[in-house]
Amino acid sequence: MKKIRAAVVGYGNIGHYALQALQAAEDFEVVGIVRRNAAAPQPAELAGIPVVADIKELADVDVALLATPTRSVKKYAKACLAAGINTVDSFDIHTQIPALRQTLAEAAKAAGRVSVISAGWDPGTDSIVRTMLQAVAPKGITYTNFGPGMSMGHTVAVKAIEGVKAALSMTIPTGTGIHRRMVYVEIEDGYTLEGVSAAIKADPYFASDETHVMQVPCVDDVIDMGHGVNMTRKGVSGVTQNQLFEFNMRINNPALTGQVLVCAARAALRQQPGCYTMPEIPVIDLLPGDRDQYIGQLV
Amino acid sequence: MKKIRAAVVGYGNIGHYALQALQAAEDFEVVGIVRRNAAAPQPAELAGIPVVADIKELADVDVALLATPTRSVKKYAKACLAAGINTVDSFDIHTQIPALRQTLAEAAKAAGRVSVISAGWDPGTDSIVRTMLQAVAPKGITYTNFGPGMSMGHTVAVKAIEGVKAALSMTIPTGTGIHRRMVYVEIEDGYTLEGVSAAIKADPYFASDETHVMQVPCVDDVIDMGHGVNMTRKGVSGVTQNQLFEFNMRINNPALTGQVLVCAARAALRQQPGCYTMPEIPVIDLLPGDRDQYIGQLV
Repeated sequence: MKKIRAAVVGYGNIGHYALQALQAAEDFEVVGIVRRNAAAPQPAELAGIPVVADIKELADVDVALLATPTRSVKKYAKACLAAGINTVDSFDIHTQIPALRQTLAEAAKAAGRVSVISAGWDPGTDSIVRTMLQAVAPKGITYTNFGPGMSMGHTVAVKAIEGVKAALSMTIPTGTGIHRRMVYVEIEDGYTLEGVSAAIKADPYFASDETHVMQVPCVDDVIDMGHGVNMTRKGVSGVTQNQLFEFNMRINNPALTGQVLVCAARAALRQQPGCYTMPEIPVIDLLPGDRDQYIGQLV
Repeated sequence: MKKIRAAVVGYGNIGHYALQALQAAEDFEVVGIVRRNAAAPQPAELAGIPVVADIKELADVDVALLATPTRSVKKYAKACLAAGINTVDSFDIHTQIPALRQTLAEAAKAAGRVSVISAGWDPGTDSIVRTMLQAVAPKGITYTNFGPGMSMGHTVAVKAIEGVKAALSMTIPTGTGIHRRMVYVEIEDGYTLEGVSAAIKADPYFASDETHVMQVPCVDDVIDMGHGVNMTRKGVSGVTQNQLFEFNMRINNPALTGQVLVCAARAALRQQPGCYTMPEIPVIDLLPGDRDQYIGQLV
């Protein structure tokens, strides 16, 4: 069987785990890694893997796994699609997904290629479950409760505040989609916990949530990449009330995202040209091999 | 907007709830009910709805919701497809799904129509979740724990045993996909609980499960149509161990099945000719209206 030739663009946490998931998948081969610092010495696990500064230096790439910062996704996806390469990403700014989908749909159709966007766990696999539950209990409320786990966006927001040397923002679910923010900081000399704490609580990322700021000697010592979700829906099927649904995960966050990117890359090669979010793709297309083999086993 | 013209074939529990779900869905209109005893007096809720003995007596049916016994699904689906009518069913004999899919794929393609099979909750929505979890943690074990709830198949098996006047078989989950059977029976005069109990425990439906048989004065008094599932997967994403997933439901069984049939009927009109199980359909196609409206809301 011809293997799917994949490249990983960006090599932070997500890129690292996406590479591991590609290497563990028998239907993929890794063509190379695209990094800005391609000329610098590379970590040991990249030995034997081409590391380049531009994806066009790699030959015959079927699909690019974009493990770049979310705000760079559009730029890299358009460049890849224009070069005839399918793309997948884990773009995670929920409110900007419709616009990204429209932009990349045009680029993908023009190139006769496929772009799968927001293929992580939320947005991503959670979106599949949320959509399914909306369908089977059309009236009702879904609550998505995140954590306990590290919020990348909130952590970045804290790091940008003056006087903060290092930071970790944990998302703690308190039910019904409401979250507490537990923020752990190292503080620069000349700043006080009181001042930094007030600045964090005034930031738009935190202003509407219950937020607690604590000083710790070393933020790195309290970081763990476990995360999770508890999604609930109570709703109505037909005219029957009190239908109860719940989806839970406790997972290594970048490891799950990396694996979802690999599943989405596989699915990308099975869709018609265009741009897709995860609920727009049959879940069976996320699996390797022929779909017939799964009908008896998983259905 | 032109409404989807649907007929319900069979009017037992599932048919009753499927009709309610159709009536609650603004994008459907009910063309009629197909029953063998169409000439007999009908229940009050069918007033104003055509009840016929053959679906060909109904005009311009887009899709038939087959709420017949599972063993009759193939026959009715083939007849509907041959008449140019798309079909959905909740066929639930897991081992026979691949063969049914193959048979109805041929019939559907020949007719240029779509058949969605095994569209209940297991097989059905559970199959979507099972497939998704297999993809995002490719190594590991999924356990599907059913109940507590009434098993239709086991109840029918008990009723077929000599000396049983009425029966209810409850499925009780004991974890790791293992189930206890709690059987409640009314016994005919001239038979003993000991004899009936031995016959039940020797039946292939019960021989390999822990089974308890109890005599009750009135089986009807202990029947409740609530059911549920607890599905767990512990697995590996890439090379990262201990990824934990769980899906739970506590639901009115026929109400959920009826609603899934309606969702699948909607999706049927959006697929290319052929036969599909639920994991082969994008979940977004289960929802009414245009998919764009859901991208911002559910993804």
